[in-house]
Amino acid sequence: MKEDQKIPNPVVRRLGLYYRCLNKLYDEGIEYVASKDIASRLGIKSSQIRKDLSYFGEFGKRGVGYNVENLIKKLETIIGVDKNWNVIIIGAGNIGSALVNYPGLKKEKFNIIGVFDADRSKVGKKIGKLTIQHISQLHEFAKKNIIEIAVIAVPENAAQMVTEELEKLGIKGIVNFAPVKLRTNIPVEEVDITLSFKTLAFKIGREGSR
Amino acid sequence: MKEDQKIPNPVVRRLGLYYRCLNKLYDEGIEYVASKDIASRLGIKSSQIRKDLSYFGEFGKRGVGYNVENLIKKLETIIGVDKNWNVIIIGAGNIGSALVNYPGLKKEKFNIIGVFDADRSKVGKKIGKLTIQHISQLHEFAKKNIIEIAVIAVPENAAQMVTEELEKLGIKGIVNFAPVKLRTNIPVEEVDITLSFKTLAFKIGREGSR
Repeated sequence: MKEDQKIPNPVVRRLGLYYRCLNKLYDEGIEYVASKDIASRLGIKSSQIRKDLSYFGEFGKRGVGYNVENLIKKLETIIGVDKNWNVIIIGAGNIGSALVNYPGLKKEKFNIIGVFDADRSKVGKKIGKLTIQHISQLHEFAKKNIIEIAVIAVPENAAQMVTEELEKLGIKGIVNFAPVKLRTNIPVEEVDITLSFKTLAFKIGREGSR
Repeated sequence: MKEDQKIPNPVVRRLGLYYRCLNKLYDEGIEYVASKDIASRLGIKSSQIRKDLSYFGEFGKRGVGYNVENLIKKLETIIGVDKNWNVIIIGAGNIGSALVNYPGLKKEKFNIIGVFDADRSKVGKKIGKLTIQHISQLHEFAKKNIIEIAVIAVPENAAQMVTEELEKLGIKGIVNFAPVKLRTNIPVEEVDITLSFKTLAFKIGREGSR
């Protein structure tokens, strides 16, 4: 892969899907897999899968397919999941709590190392093994810990201010659950839960109208 | 829009984004908007926006743009958000609780009317205004209420069994938070929180390597 090559976001998202699928195959003891088998498991066209993987110089052998273990290792390097990521969560509400307790993140090497909130009545309480800290302690915490990713799970009106604070602390990326577009130069992934519901509603509506 | 026309999923997702953006513009008192203004707010190419909207017979006037209010109404009909949707949640863990308390869903007319769990120690407890019911009560509940959408927020190993139960009850669509591909004929929207983190990690990794 060329270092300066820009990988489109949809491809990046699919790489995550392939990675998860390949890990399941590996767990099932499967050594080689054809693109059409990955395709049927994920509901993605096999031509698309071959195209995505060829991006990274991976080509399945005709009649044999891809070596599952090799492909996992290759994807781990590309996706960056071979690395451990230190994550903090700003906002100890429902979403923040759900994330701390979500086993999938730790499994994928996203380690939540701190949770912060502006509400002093929450400070000192525990979510899982973590104690909620006041947001004013973040600066001190950042001096003592390497933080790579911050999750914004605060109300809409506080999100931009928090972002600017995170930028000052040298955070490398943000996952944003607040329903607002952040102005920042740091890479941001927006998560909008309602979009999944709207997409589903649209699908149901279309089915119903036939 | 032709009734039998298949709208690709990425377009459907963008319609949700346009809808949200247009509502903000409306709140700001803006009457007309050019595709390039929507584009700069959302980080989507204006040519893409014009193409997506032309799908539905909407064309902005040269030099004037789109009428914001009309376009909102049109999108509401298309997306199905002019309708109220009754939603139940299966699994009263962190994700289930976060959804019940997430104001965005109600705002978009997704009304959560019931929460169910298999854990009897949770039954009778409250999340927001809802009382957690035992999963065995679901059948009776479905007789008395119209349920359109079910959220699966149960552990991976229970998800398929729950899906089959929902199918029997005539649920129209599923939002699935369990990390497993469901076998069903009902429309499903998969939500994988870890994918946002992986995509972000990939972006950070790429930036870092430059």
